[in-house]
Amino acid sequence: MYYAVIFTSTRTEIEEGYNEMAQKMEALAKLQPGFISIESARNEIGITVSYWENLEAIQNWKSNIDHLFAQKKGKTTWYKNYKVRIAKIEREYDFGF
Amino acid sequence: MYYAVIFTSTRTEIEEGYNEMAQKMEALAKLQPGFISIESARNEIGITVSYWENLEAIQNWKSNIDHLFAQKKGKTTWYKNYKVRIAKIEREYDFGF
Repeated sequence: MYYAVIFTSTRTEIEEGYNEMAQKMEALAKLQPGFISIESARNEIGITVSYWENLEAIQNWKSNIDHLFAQKKGKTTWYKNYKVRIAKIEREYDFGF
Repeated sequence: MYYAVIFTSTRTEIEEGYNEMAQKMEALAKLQPGFISIESARNEIGITVSYWENLEAIQNWKSNIDHLFAQKKGKTTWYKNYKVRIAKIEREYDFGF
């Protein structure tokens, strides 16, 4: 089985640098060992779910130096609040793929 | 620990009845035993994550009769495709709450 990182956030009104950072972090995540996929949506809140082969891959991504910088900047600038949940996928099914 | 149902979807262009159904299902989910919370966002794709106390609560919600009807109508009318993942939350942390 595999793992999900569910990142739920509320943004501040500061746009500067946000989209660039978000795109850069997504591109960087995709280069990490153990990365599977990522999906995002935002209205009032934002939800980004990334999928990973194992917990080690998630830990490595969390402590990636560029990602650490983005996390720090996120707290001071872009996010009012956020919540990160790490979850083990136990079952799945789909329709229409 | 608790569980998440990650529902990722792509919509058809048929709006009729969709918002009403989505609101009704959210209200109904909140009445289920074992329900914790729900959060949604949509741009190109939609992501809804609901949180539950245990797998039994998720199973009961999945087989709720009104929810079954919405699932059926979803496949014929509102969704191009969707994926459901059931995941066990193993760890979490937050900022700014």
